[in-house]
Amino acid sequence: MQTSETQNVIFAKGEKAPADYFTGNAWVKTLVPKGTAFNCVIANVVFEPGCRNNWHTHPGGQILICTYGIGYYQEKGKPIQVLTKGDVVQIPPDLEHWHGASPDSEFTHIAVNTHSDKGLVNWMRRVTDEEYHSFANE
Amino acid sequence: MQTSETQNVIFAKGEKAPADYFTGNAWVKTLVPKGTAFNCVIANVVFEPGCRNNWHTHPGGQILICTYGIGYYQEKGKPIQVLTKGDVVQIPPDLEHWHGASPDSEFTHIAVNTHSDKGLVNWMRRVTDEEYHSFANE
Repeated sequence: MQTSETQNVIFAKGEKAPADYFTGNAWVKTLVPKGTAFNCVIANVVFEPGCRNNWHTHPGGQILICTYGIGYYQEKGKPIQVLTKGDVVQIPPDLEHWHGASPDSEFTHIAVNTHSDKGLVNWMRRVTDEEYHSFANE
Repeated sequence: MQTSETQNVIFAKGEKAPADYFTGNAWVKTLVPKGTAFNCVIANVVFEPGCRNNWHTHPGGQILICTYGIGYYQEKGKPIQVLTKGDVVQIPPDLEHWHGASPDSEFTHIAVNTHSDKGLVNWMRRVTDEEYHSFANE
């Protein structure tokens, strides 16, 4: 599963993601902040291998644009999907899900939060090791 | 001005951009289409060296996320700005502007069209060679 591609970093890593909502290390760089006329918040997120965020929802929906490495994405009640560079994930408003890196590869995506005036994210509980490793065990 | 960075292509090139609205060759790959709940259209655009689009406006605004090469961006009445990897441009609704590659480098950006129900683009006249080369002559 180790990625062999050459990384062509587009953005600096930004701020460390909050430990309450991420298991492992991730960095978030805001590209377009809250409160603009675009009603859209955009950030670049880098996940270290094994890192994932908690289960959560986005009141206004979110689009993930995958730019580097190998990641995981799971919607409540469905199996984990593997994400690689060039994948685009459309996450409807209020759908419970999580995302992060796969166990052996760093993973980077751009996150586009639409309808940001409705709120950006509602955090829920952590993704357990059993849930995270369910992909390898399927 | 030749870029020496290694290109790490994220998206396939997509469809050739319409010659009526682009001077030179560009390719557009749609990542999120019209008509979704996100009210946001996202595309990846690759410009060959020297290629630029016509003067135009976006009724709902547009955000450019630059991912490769060296590009140009100009707002009406202002000098050309040079764009490189990692630059993010916030283009307000109805602001007349154009963008494209610099003369000697390919250029790639992701374009995020917000409030897409208001319409994506109003095309205007071509960018003349004199306008395009005004940067080098400043």
